[in-house]
Amino acid sequence: MNEGDGRPPMTLDVLALLVELRAITATPGRGCTRLAYTPLESQAHDLVWGRFAQRGYARVSDPAGNMFVLPESVARDASTTPVVLVGSHLDTVIEGGWLDGALGVAIGAQVVDALGPAGHRVGLVVFRDEEGVRFRTGLFGSKVFAGLCGEADLAVTDAEGARLAGLVPDAAGCVRYQRPVRPAAYLECHIEQGVRLIERGRRAAVVTGMVGIRRLELVGTGAANHAGTTEMHRRVDALLPVAAAVARLPTLVEDLPEAVITCGRIGVQPGAANIVPGEARALVEIRAPDTASIDLVERRLRALVRGLRPPTPSSRPAEVRIEPVVEIPPAPTDPGLRALLADVMRAHGLPVEELPSMAGHDAQHVARICPAGMLFIPSIGGVSHHPAEDSHPDDIGLAAQLMTAWAERAAAACSSS
Amino acid sequence: MNEGDGRPPMTLDVLALLVELRAITATPGRGCTRLAYTPLESQAHDLVWGRFAQRGYARVSDPAGNMFVLPESVARDASTTPVVLVGSHLDTVIEGGWLDGALGVAIGAQVVDALGPAGHRVGLVVFRDEEGVRFRTGLFGSKVFAGLCGEADLAVTDAEGARLAGLVPDAAGCVRYQRPVRPAAYLECHIEQGVRLIERGRRAAVVTGMVGIRRLELVGTGAANHAGTTEMHRRVDALLPVAAAVARLPTLVEDLPEAVITCGRIGVQPGAANIVPGEARALVEIRAPDTASIDLVERRLRALVRGLRPPTPSSRPAEVRIEPVVEIPPAPTDPGLRALLADVMRAHGLPVEELPSMAGHDAQHVARICPAGMLFIPSIGGVSHHPAEDSHPDDIGLAAQLMTAWAERAAAACSSS
Repeated sequence: MNEGDGRPPMTLDVLALLVELRAITATPGRGCTRLAYTPLESQAHDLVWGRFAQRGYARVSDPAGNMFVLPESVARDASTTPVVLVGSHLDTVIEGGWLDGALGVAIGAQVVDALGPAGHRVGLVVFRDEEGVRFRTGLFGSKVFAGLCGEADLAVTDAEGARLAGLVPDAAGCVRYQRPVRPAAYLECHIEQGVRLIERGRRAAVVTGMVGIRRLELVGTGAANHAGTTEMHRRVDALLPVAAAVARLPTLVEDLPEAVITCGRIGVQPGAANIVPGEARALVEIRAPDTASIDLVERRLRALVRGLRPPTPSSRPAEVRIEPVVEIPPAPTDPGLRALLADVMRAHGLPVEELPSMAGHDAQHVARICPAGMLFIPSIGGVSHHPAEDSHPDDIGLAAQLMTAWAERAAAACSSS
Repeated sequence: MNEGDGRPPMTLDVLALLVELRAITATPGRGCTRLAYTPLESQAHDLVWGRFAQRGYARVSDPAGNMFVLPESVARDASTTPVVLVGSHLDTVIEGGWLDGALGVAIGAQVVDALGPAGHRVGLVVFRDEEGVRFRTGLFGSKVFAGLCGEADLAVTDAEGARLAGLVPDAAGCVRYQRPVRPAAYLECHIEQGVRLIERGRRAAVVTGMVGIRRLELVGTGAANHAGTTEMHRRVDALLPVAAAVARLPTLVEDLPEAVITCGRIGVQPGAANIVPGEARALVEIRAPDTASIDLVERRLRALVRGLRPPTPSSRPAEVRIEPVVEIPPAPTDPGLRALLADVMRAHGLPVEELPSMAGHDAQHVARICPAGMLFIPSIGGVSHHPAEDSHPDDIGLAAQLMTAWAERAAAACSSS
């Protein structure tokens, strides 16, 4: 039953590393705050590397600041001969939890440590700036690694006006980036950040893929006018139809249990108490595991907007258009890697639970350049991006065992193919 | 038929003065921009005073910067013996029109000029900062004049951090203000800023009063959560009920032709595309000529909010509370002054049209300390707070005649009472 076949299940203390990482925060006592490209994020990278220094491993960095920890023998030809990478990220949101990202890195470190510095082609990867809080970039390090980063991505500044450094676009607007490690596969362990596993009584799940995300903006156009002297039947109030549509959004996914829809931002211009809104904007985000579902929800949204009726017979309707804002296609995980992980779970006596990830992860970008797979473990209470974020220590230990066995199998499959 | 009884209807060229005032703007070619307490507003005051200097009139100012132009004989005892004041304001909104405020001042100047520097107790008043654009104060000069200004009113700063100067609150938080002119009555001519007069084919109207304004905030309280990993039936989305209520606002005044209701500002916290709103706020403004109607609309708003149903059977409702923000009571004009103006209109062969003012005016505050009355003339197309704001020159000329006759009668009524 036990895939660990005699090897100690934990050669590196994952929990101790996680607790040490937890202490690297700008907000002690108020959760983890390690924003991307700050000294605290670099300190966390250094702490992880400290577990490997002078033990037969090499540290490799790329211009985005992503860190790779590879067996020395592997590091020599890593840019040409593929390496199975295991990892995640070490940056956090503001006053976030200790496991989002750090869990995948600490378990990746355990995997690489457990396999030892020789006899395999498995390495740890730590991506920069997954959360995108500081520069509002999001999944940035993995985007660079996947060769998807363009000039616009580099133009961003943080609240203090600081720019991302180290990456330069060429004349065509492409980022000059030599990938220092050629990935054979990418494996990531992450907390679920939801309650599905806990509700189903499961300790682990094979992630079927990362949801697609489509952001659309509802833009109402009316006529800004004095809110006292403009009688109700003369107004063209931009907000009324936009508000009516927003209020009905949940009906669009009522029969689609794996889709969600949200309006997280709304506003009007000019935005004064005594002026009828001349323009109203509502940002609507649709997430679903497949593009067909996202398309269906968008069609329903368009039908909802077309079918809006003014609130009173004498109201003059404002025009509402729908503008595309962001499109992140769904990223299914690799079927071969999923099958390997399912085998590992069965070998551990676990039922094979499958789940889509409703959040974005670095695996989303990396899946564009190599097979990618993810393992979820339960989040207590579904809480994430919050100081109370937690998982059971037994589930963390189990995840370390599953990831080690999975990486071993994936490396064997890659070398034999 | 003609009340002007032989006196030239225009001793001072109202249109010429208006055109000269129009040229005093920070935005030439893009309408009038004379913000309160800027050198441009003072320049406009000086221009008006220039029509009276060295002709037997005195200029009196108060600590708020309000200007009074009085016959010299009247100025001597103006703080103790009542004076009929005619006027308005000279500040504007950004890129506003040439008549909002300036019309009432130019016609007030014509009235004072027509009556001459002797033999009556009629003066011109020019209030500061009616629009409230710069400090978001609104009706400020008249508020000080009416003794309604408190410490909080003086704490405001403009976008550059500049403070209102010249007024100091005492230990009790009251503003020390000695009224330099004791008002017997206040008469104001203003453009309607709506289309009711034009639709009814009228050239002038007796204003029955200024509407009351009640601002309430709808505050939805939900739970901020990840918009990907939080399934629809687990969310408590603060925005959904607030948006549903806003979309229905026009229904609350459908049977009340003199009431209006507006949501001019809406927003959510934290306000990110991928976070379910934890808080939503919508500012709702109700205007009606009487408090009973405002109370009725507020009761309907509360019933609407109580009666909201979640958009789907599985949606969890967020709590919505209603908070008071601003309360400006309705200010009826003085019945005696209204009757005098109606007489004047009949004497000019005009039907007596009566209208409530749906906008706030300086008369609103002054009505608290003396009888106040207003005359409206038509706004072409109902346009105001816009460079296209205009009225027909014949209507402006008629208004100057009506106001002169009205002021003469009012002064006679005051001196005989």
